Amino acid sequence: MYQTIKLKTDNRNEMIDITGQIKKLVTESGVKDGICVVCSAHTTAGITINENADPTVCSDLTCFLEKLVPADTEYFEHDEGNSDSHSKVSLIGPSVSLIVDDGQPLLGTWQGIYFAEFDGPRDRKVWVKIISG
Amino acid sequence: MYQTIKLKTDNRNEMIDITGQIKKLVTESGVKDGICVVCSAHTTAGITINENADPTVCSDLTCFLEKLVPADTEYFEHDEGNSDSHSKVSLIGPSVSLIVDDGQPLLGTWQGIYFAEFDGPRDRKVWVKIISG
Amino acid sequence: MYQTIKLKTDNRNEMIDITGQIKKLVTESGVKDGICVVCSAHTTAGITINENADPTVCSDLTCFLEKLVPADTEYFEHDEGNSDSHSKVSLIGPSVSLIVDDGQPLLGTWQGIYFAEFDGPRDRKVWVKIISG
Repeated sequence: MYQTIKLKTDNRNEMIDITGQIKKLVTESGVKDGICVVCSAHTTAGITINENADPTVCSDLTCFLEKLVPADTEYFEHDEGNSDSHSKVSLIGPSVSLIVDDGQPLLGTWQGIYFAEFDGPRDRKVWVKIISG
Repeated sequence: MYQTIKLKTDNRNEMIDITGQIKKLVTESGVKDGICVVCSAHTTAGITINENADPTVCSDLTCFLEKLVPADTEYFEHDEGNSDSHSKVSLIGPSVSLIVDDGQPLLGTWQGIYFAEFDGPRDRKVWVKIISG
Repeated sequence: MYQTIKLKTDNRNEMIDITGQIKKLVTESGVKDGICVVCSAHTTAGITINENADPTVCSDLTCFLEKLVPADTEYFEHDEGNSDSHSKVSLIGPSVSLIVDDGQPLLGTWQGIYFAEFDGPRDRKVWVKIISG
């Protein structure tokens, strides 16, 4: 058993805070102590953890990544024009693992869980697995 | 108990699709639902998930990383000449965690699991742990 | 139940080897086989695995990251002046998952576990969860 979060992204590059949805799934699972694995189902969108207080943290990160791997990089050969998106996913990572404590994902004061869209807008899925232990 | 996949890489930078081997290990484990952790045993080779349909996705990623961290970066002090390889591993990541569902690793349509060699050719090992839950 | 490692960092950018502390926690847990998840509690410090033999590997990585994301990047808007730190965490990753075998974290010959400080000096926490399976 695993859970699916469905998302609709609006922009080519976008970070969507899914912390609330993850917290809800952990609570509903009834697991008090364990591990939660959060996975992107896609190769042009990843998962990361970063600050959820000031939105400029996410926009600065997105902007940095766009300059680091420009969509029009001339030596890219993949003919769908989204090698930048694929590259960003391998940099950011396709998933995160969280500790579950006292029925909640363990997060620092400023930590939020983000779906990192790099080739939107698209309909997307995030898979969540919670195990007790 | 964990499993070991042995690989022989052919190039300094190379992405090797290990999806089939991971699927086989998950099937053989008999675990129906749980988590699978896939770890590189090395500090100059990592693990990532990316597209396994068009091989230019991997060659574009490899090419991007070579330009991002050139092997001959002049300020590198490590005298084995492979600080680029070490740096790439920390960017890409040393391991991935997968959800196991219905006796198989849960992967999106285009997702494959890759061993990312950054200092080959070498004999390499990947460790795989599958737990039920 | 999870464990906390407390750290005091001395520099803005710094990699601290926490392998010994992780090994000690795994031994004390009594878990013989399973998984260990090591998480940074912060959004400006991450966790990675890299070589723990020659210290120039870590200093080269830190130096590379400082040049990749300069602290004074002019288009950064986040007014705390540490968008570089946040960006580096999403590149390096906020956590790692390890295999536990025979009562010890499974690590390759040269692999060490590092707390990667990108906005020190600060008092920091690392959370460690060990599950049997």
